[in-house]
Amino acid sequence: MYAAMGALGLAPSEQDKEFAAPRPGDFALRGKGAAKVVILGAGVAGLTAAYELGKAGYDCTLLEAREKAGGRNLTLRAGDRLTELNGPAQEVTFGEGVYFNAGPGRIAPWMVTLDYCRELGIPIETFVNSNAAAYVHTNGQTMRARTARADMYGYVAELLAKATNIGALDKAITGDDQERLLEFLRRFGDLGPKLEYEGSERRGFTKFPAIDTGTPLQAPGPLHQILAAGTGRAITNDFGYDQATPMFQPVGGMDAIVAKLTDAVGQDRIRTGAKVTKVTTMADGVEVVWDGGAIKADYCVAALPPHVLAKIPHNLGAQITTALATPVPVAAGKIGLEYGTRWWELEDRIYGGVTETDLDITHIWYPSHGYHSERGVLVGYYNTEREAELYGALTPDDRRRRALTQGKKIHGEKYRQNILSSASIAWHRQPHIQGGWVRWPAFDSSFTLLQRPAGRVYFAGDWLTHLIAWQAGAMESARDAVTRLHQRVLRSP
Amino acid sequence: MYAAMGALGLAPSEQDKEFAAPRPGDFALRGKGAAKVVILGAGVAGLTAAYELGKAGYDCTLLEAREKAGGRNLTLRAGDRLTELNGPAQEVTFGEGVYFNAGPGRIAPWMVTLDYCRELGIPIETFVNSNAAAYVHTNGQTMRARTARADMYGYVAELLAKATNIGALDKAITGDDQERLLEFLRRFGDLGPKLEYEGSERRGFTKFPAIDTGTPLQAPGPLHQILAAGTGRAITNDFGYDQATPMFQPVGGMDAIVAKLTDAVGQDRIRTGAKVTKVTTMADGVEVVWDGGAIKADYCVAALPPHVLAKIPHNLGAQITTALATPVPVAAGKIGLEYGTRWWELEDRIYGGVTETDLDITHIWYPSHGYHSERGVLVGYYNTEREAELYGALTPDDRRRRALTQGKKIHGEKYRQNILSSASIAWHRQPHIQGGWVRWPAFDSSFTLLQRPAGRVYFAGDWLTHLIAWQAGAMESARDAVTRLHQRVLRSP
Repeated sequence: MYAAMGALGLAPSEQDKEFAAPRPGDFALRGKGAAKVVILGAGVAGLTAAYELGKAGYDCTLLEAREKAGGRNLTLRAGDRLTELNGPAQEVTFGEGVYFNAGPGRIAPWMVTLDYCRELGIPIETFVNSNAAAYVHTNGQTMRARTARADMYGYVAELLAKATNIGALDKAITGDDQERLLEFLRRFGDLGPKLEYEGSERRGFTKFPAIDTGTPLQAPGPLHQILAAGTGRAITNDFGYDQATPMFQPVGGMDAIVAKLTDAVGQDRIRTGAKVTKVTTMADGVEVVWDGGAIKADYCVAALPPHVLAKIPHNLGAQITTALATPVPVAAGKIGLEYGTRWWELEDRIYGGVTETDLDITHIWYPSHGYHSERGVLVGYYNTEREAELYGALTPDDRRRRALTQGKKIHGEKYRQNILSSASIAWHRQPHIQGGWVRWPAFDSSFTLLQRPAGRVYFAGDWLTHLIAWQAGAMESARDAVTRLHQRVLRSP
Repeated sequence: MYAAMGALGLAPSEQDKEFAAPRPGDFALRGKGAAKVVILGAGVAGLTAAYELGKAGYDCTLLEAREKAGGRNLTLRAGDRLTELNGPAQEVTFGEGVYFNAGPGRIAPWMVTLDYCRELGIPIETFVNSNAAAYVHTNGQTMRARTARADMYGYVAELLAKATNIGALDKAITGDDQERLLEFLRRFGDLGPKLEYEGSERRGFTKFPAIDTGTPLQAPGPLHQILAAGTGRAITNDFGYDQATPMFQPVGGMDAIVAKLTDAVGQDRIRTGAKVTKVTTMADGVEVVWDGGAIKADYCVAALPPHVLAKIPHNLGAQITTALATPVPVAAGKIGLEYGTRWWELEDRIYGGVTETDLDITHIWYPSHGYHSERGVLVGYYNTEREAELYGALTPDDRRRRALTQGKKIHGEKYRQNILSSASIAWHRQPHIQGGWVRWPAFDSSFTLLQRPAGRVYFAGDWLTHLIAWQAGAMESARDAVTRLHQRVLRSP
């Protein structure tokens, strides 16, 4: 019964069940002392590892090269100072209560991240990842997402209805199924009585119904025009299992996760500003040298990005060296634009969500919190690879200027007005991180090699999972490393 | 430029611009005293009328037959007592902080309701109206919405791609457009290299990707099976302009709108328990008799349901009598089921949203607030017409029993376990309301007749708009009545 439910997608995710967190009694029952673990990196993977190991009393020390814990889980607020490799520092001057998630910004409900929010008592709220009222900007044209979707669906339905009715599907499906299909298409495309797409109220209105029936948008262009608009990518953006509605965010900023993990682990266990320079695995332990000293421990969890780890001398062997150098860092960038008025709500009636574009800004995100408040931060670009490198190479002022020029194509002149401040990040220029995430040329033996320990060194990070670029990946990887490490410790004589 | 933007759906809704609220100086500037208005009904329409008239200093009195203001905007909490016509009363025993919006529960972002939330300082949060992880239950089968959608889209894309490739569209569209169409279909249906639907990760997983690539659901059934499942209505439920993602709700309960409007109007202006028995329009004013007295005023705003108004003797003429009797009350019902654990979050990973069914419960709503808290209220049915009459005719206990039997078909035995309390409403059995909303056989001369005043009596309510069953309709209608009334007062000598 349960297996059958699983096949139908009815059973709960097994994610949780697989992980049995270390427990306080695990050592005492076996008459052992708690092992000592040094963790490289206090990003989400490192913090999660420390948190889970801490449940059984492991003596963890985290070495973090940056000035504070969290890694890419970075929320910027007034008073923060953001430095970049080979670039000027930015002082963040947002208003009180205003924040900008410069790293991860959304959580899918099936992800383990949400379990940590629950366990750590972090309140969550909806992240609006799809908004019918947001825009699609492609090939120089701007329209509401609802309009783009209604037109594509309408014409697809009309074309398939036509093909059905001229007998093109007669060999493929029965007459009864054709009837069922036509019934679906009528609904799916909002087709007229002749099964033709003549526009639809789903496209939107210049004046919504109220006392009268309202003023629908003018009729859609012909199919050729709709296809030429090229909105396909934009309107299917939320189809993926990782992007589907609804998504979530911690109330008050993503770094609530960092704050709560840090509290649970103990701030005193995290040594910041500590850059690791050497890792040595030995028969009876590990030694980690950092720029302010050295530390000996029973085990090590290396939770740094692979391209950063790859530069640290070690004795883990040539295969490890090669494997660590395999994944390719991917550039990623974001800008937060703080406005003195939430014109996107007041004028555009856009409450959260994403405008998809084919411009180099790629996306504009509208905040999913603080609705109707005085100020708000838009994400003016969130781009990767070539576009992120392009923006990242600019000064912060020039990034902002370029982002505003692009956004104006969608929102008009108001996009450049009433801006109070901004902050931009180029993750590939962030000290000790140097990338938004990584891309594996193939999930090959290098990938699986690093999922296993090398001597007494365990690796952890989103880059060791199939959830790359998600905090859930970092957490899942940390859980896996913790499980392997803890089992070994309990097994060891 | 602005007109062009409007055509593209870029300009803000004109809803706001059309309404110029009465202002404090309107009377003083013209050397007039404030007029006196008696308002029948302190539902959302009556309260909005009083609120807007109050801005110019009108002396408003609201007569409300029920024990408290709000009408169908009703949020039930511990300590509330819900009476029904010809039925037992229910004592609401939800836990502290738990609530159930027994009436309206969601707001589309373009609706004027959100403007009132902003103006009145009512915090809002997302109402999840579409959830890929919620279920679709049709023809005895249950699957996740994401699965139902992926399969229908996949096969529709495959069929149209096939029809295109055998030349069925050659007369309809050019080769270039066929290429564009195929590119879209590949993306839309997640088709394989042969443009066939072979399943998709969009369907979901029994184990989501993490350390490994996860375990996708087993392959989809054949097209015949997918069509026979009849999920079409369920997966297009959020396509309408009034149901599209995202939607919103006031934090803490929908009745925050009632509370804030009441505060603004002045509780002392609302006489509850006052049933109107006669309305007389005269040359110089109106007289309204209620079961505890009579009141004279300059004007009247009749903001009761039409079928309730139709039973009150008046001197407004036979046409008005006929018109008021034209709209047909529609039955609507809801049940709130309070559970001691939020199993839908913990086990099903459903955070808010709606499961669509072809059962008589029609929908199950999961709460879009209080995530991860201890308790929660599901809406176990929200049905109308025949189904609402069926449930409404049962005792509260039997409604609950039936709702649980139906919900068990989707969620299994846990649906009947750990229930702490419940409360159900049959709107057609609510005193002085007697219907969920109304249906006009046609928006004909009776409809437009009542949009205009009859003597000194103005009508207001969602039933006088094309937003029937929405609070926005009540508010828009109230604004229209207020505008007409105020213009007349300012014009009068």
